[in-house]
Amino acid sequence: MATLFAHGAYVWGHDSTADVLIRDGVIDAVGELDPAADAETLDLTGQVLMPSFVEAHCHLDKTLFGGRWVPHSAGDALAERIANDRDRRRELGIPSVDRIAALLQQMASYGTTHARTHTDVDPDVGLRGIEAVREAATRVGTVSVHQVAFPQHGVLATPGTEALLSAAAGAGVEAIGGIDPAGMDGDPVRHLDIVFGIAERHGLSLDIHLHDGGTLGAWELELIAERTKALSLAGRVAVSHAYAFGDLTDQHRDSIVERIAEAGVSIVTGAVYSFPVPPVKTLRAAGANVACGHDGIRDLWGPYGSGDMLERAMHLAYRSTFRRDADIELALEAVTLGGRRLLGFDDRGIVPGAPADLVAVPADTPAEAVVTHPAERTIVRAGRVVTAA
Amino acid sequence: MATLFAHGAYVWGHDSTADVLIRDGVIDAVGELDPAADAETLDLTGQVLMPSFVEAHCHLDKTLFGGRWVPHSAGDALAERIANDRDRRRELGIPSVDRIAALLQQMASYGTTHARTHTDVDPDVGLRGIEAVREAATRVGTVSVHQVAFPQHGVLATPGTEALLSAAAGAGVEAIGGIDPAGMDGDPVRHLDIVFGIAERHGLSLDIHLHDGGTLGAWELELIAERTKALSLAGRVAVSHAYAFGDLTDQHRDSIVERIAEAGVSIVTGAVYSFPVPPVKTLRAAGANVACGHDGIRDLWGPYGSGDMLERAMHLAYRSTFRRDADIELALEAVTLGGRRLLGFDDRGIVPGAPADLVAVPADTPAEAVVTHPAERTIVRAGRVVTAA
Repeated sequence: MATLFAHGAYVWGHDSTADVLIRDGVIDAVGELDPAADAETLDLTGQVLMPSFVEAHCHLDKTLFGGRWVPHSAGDALAERIANDRDRRRELGIPSVDRIAALLQQMASYGTTHARTHTDVDPDVGLRGIEAVREAATRVGTVSVHQVAFPQHGVLATPGTEALLSAAAGAGVEAIGGIDPAGMDGDPVRHLDIVFGIAERHGLSLDIHLHDGGTLGAWELELIAERTKALSLAGRVAVSHAYAFGDLTDQHRDSIVERIAEAGVSIVTGAVYSFPVPPVKTLRAAGANVACGHDGIRDLWGPYGSGDMLERAMHLAYRSTFRRDADIELALEAVTLGGRRLLGFDDRGIVPGAPADLVAVPADTPAEAVVTHPAERTIVRAGRVVTAA
Repeated sequence: MATLFAHGAYVWGHDSTADVLIRDGVIDAVGELDPAADAETLDLTGQVLMPSFVEAHCHLDKTLFGGRWVPHSAGDALAERIANDRDRRRELGIPSVDRIAALLQQMASYGTTHARTHTDVDPDVGLRGIEAVREAATRVGTVSVHQVAFPQHGVLATPGTEALLSAAAGAGVEAIGGIDPAGMDGDPVRHLDIVFGIAERHGLSLDIHLHDGGTLGAWELELIAERTKALSLAGRVAVSHAYAFGDLTDQHRDSIVERIAEAGVSIVTGAVYSFPVPPVKTLRAAGANVACGHDGIRDLWGPYGSGDMLERAMHLAYRSTFRRDADIELALEAVTLGGRRLLGFDDRGIVPGAPADLVAVPADTPAEAVVTHPAERTIVRAGRVVTAA
């Protein structure tokens, strides 16, 4: 493989201008370097160099991306959106391998190399979503896609789903999902018994959608933290959305943050719509991992989303009212290293020995890169320049 | 002047594909038209055509736009941000005609033709901000800039400000500003007496920053509505931010909306950070005008903002949890016709007789234009193509 000498970028994590020497897809050296004789030089003067992006929470199987605009047809209530999704996905041919592939290509074009996607598994769709996502991921090839078998319509609320989650686990998904163990399924202990059980038996990760708010959601966060600790699953359990954080007193919030951090549970947020954003800075200060994803991208649940994780980092920073560079960089961390931690990948950043999956954009600082998220990108994947700005 | 035949766009407001004939800077006809013999043809097939954008609330005088990235240096508290602003603006040479002009040029490049800007007026800066903005606006020439003389540090709280507001009124600003009559100045009746008084004497508009939340802010909204009605100032008074709407019960909120609508008070929102967004749909349904602006753009108060009002419309729609096309178009209305109503300009949209200030972007529908806010734009100003995509 080629040797690449990336010259003159402001290297995030190194916190200054530095050269990066890449050999055989791996970062070989970072600092003030002499160009290697055998290296291709990549001039990144005036650019900020970051690890490639991780989309930590999306729903590839549902996307309408890549086609003409589909006006949103659901009402505002959750039940209306669920019914709309069920009825119209057939009419529109969802899941569609073509649409999923189009979205993955778009994500890759922005510099995303890894994605966790929650794929619907229910008696209606069966494992077709899992298969469609896998086929699209294979076709595109440039994004490492991890699937969560996701019980969108509940596990207990939709009989037959438990067996399908087990079947999905057997069919090679990377994680098991859950959803509002109390608010959706009405029996949080049984719900968690089931999803933790399947994840444990198959040695998979777990990622639970938690929209339940206030003290109910907070209590479920405690349940999940306790169980993660009891089963020694630190680093393998995540809670997505966790809107409840937005409803708590500071003291209650901080106590939940402590438990989450201590148990090794990751929090995944999209900073979507006007829903509460988990306290990113407090979580990171406590040592809890935070990752970030779009949630739905152009689907029957909502028409928004570009697939660009650097833009998504802007939303996360903006909704977190982060103004200082160091704070804004927490959002950048969520879309790069936080996502890697979530998925169990190398999270060391731009240091010798780490994989050379990198993105550069024109900016003075990493915070500026987030705020302006320029469309112009240089993308290095496995040590090769795949997109030159 | 040239005659222009804009062909094939989906014309917002006309709600279908239509041709637009423009003569002497004015829309002459809209519909299925034969090209005029003397017309330059502009092919807008596959594009959505909208009125040009109105930036309804910004702070041009404070901007650091156009220079290198300036890391944010203030603390999180309001008092820290005020102190930081006062100290650092001198060091950084703010207000700067060059920076203001750079931002106006950027705004124009996105298709903004009108802007209302709140310019600080206080004993420290005097009327220098007013003069700097005017000089930059004259230099750029393509954005019609309306200034609000803005008492950032209070009217009563900062002695000398009242006289400066009067002086600014005499020096030709278009509107008088106010700020948290209770929360900042501690005497809402006196504050409103002063700012309404100056506006009335000089025949100017009024635009009051209202960050005060909950029942306090709601009560101030009532005070402003009552006074607007009593003084027959319908259409000339606006409240910016109006965060209090986010804290009220539905019933209380709806009653305030009714009063605001009845009095003819406009609400201006930026949908910034995580601050509450006023209930745009409820306000419009009640007949109240809603306009939209960035608030600060790249300044000492915060590093965000691009100057693109179509992107800002996305933020407004997204934070309003608008999913359906008709709802998303309310955000488009806020950045086009709502802003025109605020400033007293022709708000009829793309119809015969209206000024030909137009923007086209590649999209299937107006809602898609908002969601994707493509960088590729065709801009028509006063009937001339100034930017061709």
